[in-house]
Amino acid sequence: MLEHPFLNRLNTLSSQRHNSLCIGLDPDMDKMPDFIDRSISGVEIFLKSIIDRTQDICIAYKPNISFFEGLGLEGLHLLKRVIDYIDDVPVILDAKRGDIGNTSKQQARFIFEEMNADATTLHPYMGDDSLQPFFEYKEKFSFVLGLTSNPGSERFEKLKLETRKYLYEHVIEQCADWHSIYGNVGVVVGATQSELSAIRAIDERLLFLIPGVGAQGGSYSDCVNVGKNSDGLVLINMSRNVLYAGHDEDFALKARESASLSIQ
Amino acid sequence: MLEHPFLNRLNTLSSQRHNSLCIGLDPDMDKMPDFIDRSISGVEIFLKSIIDRTQDICIAYKPNISFFEGLGLEGLHLLKRVIDYIDDVPVILDAKRGDIGNTSKQQARFIFEEMNADATTLHPYMGDDSLQPFFEYKEKFSFVLGLTSNPGSERFEKLKLETRKYLYEHVIEQCADWHSIYGNVGVVVGATQSELSAIRAIDERLLFLIPGVGAQGGSYSDCVNVGKNSDGLVLINMSRNVLYAGHDEDFALKARESASLSIQ
Repeated sequence: MLEHPFLNRLNTLSSQRHNSLCIGLDPDMDKMPDFIDRSISGVEIFLKSIIDRTQDICIAYKPNISFFEGLGLEGLHLLKRVIDYIDDVPVILDAKRGDIGNTSKQQARFIFEEMNADATTLHPYMGDDSLQPFFEYKEKFSFVLGLTSNPGSERFEKLKLETRKYLYEHVIEQCADWHSIYGNVGVVVGATQSELSAIRAIDERLLFLIPGVGAQGGSYSDCVNVGKNSDGLVLINMSRNVLYAGHDEDFALKARESASLSIQ
Repeated sequence: MLEHPFLNRLNTLSSQRHNSLCIGLDPDMDKMPDFIDRSISGVEIFLKSIIDRTQDICIAYKPNISFFEGLGLEGLHLLKRVIDYIDDVPVILDAKRGDIGNTSKQQARFIFEEMNADATTLHPYMGDDSLQPFFEYKEKFSFVLGLTSNPGSERFEKLKLETRKYLYEHVIEQCADWHSIYGNVGVVVGATQSELSAIRAIDERLLFLIPGVGAQGGSYSDCVNVGKNSDGLVLINMSRNVLYAGHDEDFALKARESASLSIQ
């Protein structure tokens, strides 16, 4: 499994830096320090400053494409520049895609080739042929939504199937099968501690991307302990509490301090 | 229900033109006539020619954003120009979005404000708060994926729930509830004829967007008869067989002829 380039890089960084921190790059003009210009170039200065101060202490970045789209089409050009700017840390472009096969092929081309991301996130609903065009990028990695951390996850993800399993459990089992075939499939798991243990028990090799630590009451170290796979890998994403930790000229240093504190 | 601007426009056009045709605008350089330049401006000429020749005979257009992303970032600028170019026919921007609430808000802003689409498509998996930011655009309309027409729909959409219903039936029932609350929710239904009858029976008011006629063996007129709602409205999407009907200078006329033939 560690022969995969994305997993390899994560493994190296995680061993060197002794953490599992993924920083979510979700630009929000309402939350940036007041002195920064509310413009594409203001956001660019903001994000690049954060990257300068954090890329030696995290093991991945996860920009969510929607926050860049929210800035208009110029925001997408900015996203491309931001991904290019990141040197040694792998980039998960959180895009939550999935469509019929020949359309997913276009999506995968956009995310992996045009935007040059190392990994992405996918909606499982449409099934196999909506996901395979992503899996077929052998050097890239895909995280399929398993259990998400939002209140709406109760609506469909937690439906009980005829088999007495929850829908999300079935999706995650299927992802374990796909990972066995393709070697580049992980899952997004935003879970309480007890759910996380149960999900870990489904498959010991699957890589979890865990968003929203804190929102579920679990600490960073609890999530690492319960969430890591048989290679000791897991990704714990933190976004707002890192990005918007400071409000003055030292905002990037404050972001670094907040990130460092979070992983202790 | 017909007080909604999108439904109103559909209703007017459907009555005037006596059809339910939605044309899918999915640019594919491999399929365009040979004489057209393989460039953004070539695709622009191609699509605008098709629009010129078809916008008086269809009742909606459905560009899929992924095919424009597949052309690179300039493809998204082209998409915006194409949407602006369409005059009187409503535009469904097929984007299959859905994320946690504050992220979906950015997605909705991008699709409804930046791209100025009249409607979009959504992935149900993440539930209520992933969809509400779209529903809250009162003047806009959202089609939630119910049952899709691809082979992968067997994997999760057709799972049996504890209640003995299929997952897709439960999703569609939930959409009927949301439509009762918000007045601007429809569903994507790519079904065989017998499935379509059963889904119509769930709720008589829900607007169906039916992709891929032919692929399931049903004819256009069968789909209209079984799929229309209590206002007589339904959208039957056709894409490749219209767009790529011709290979010479008269390709747009051929597209029009193919569209006209399809709805007879």
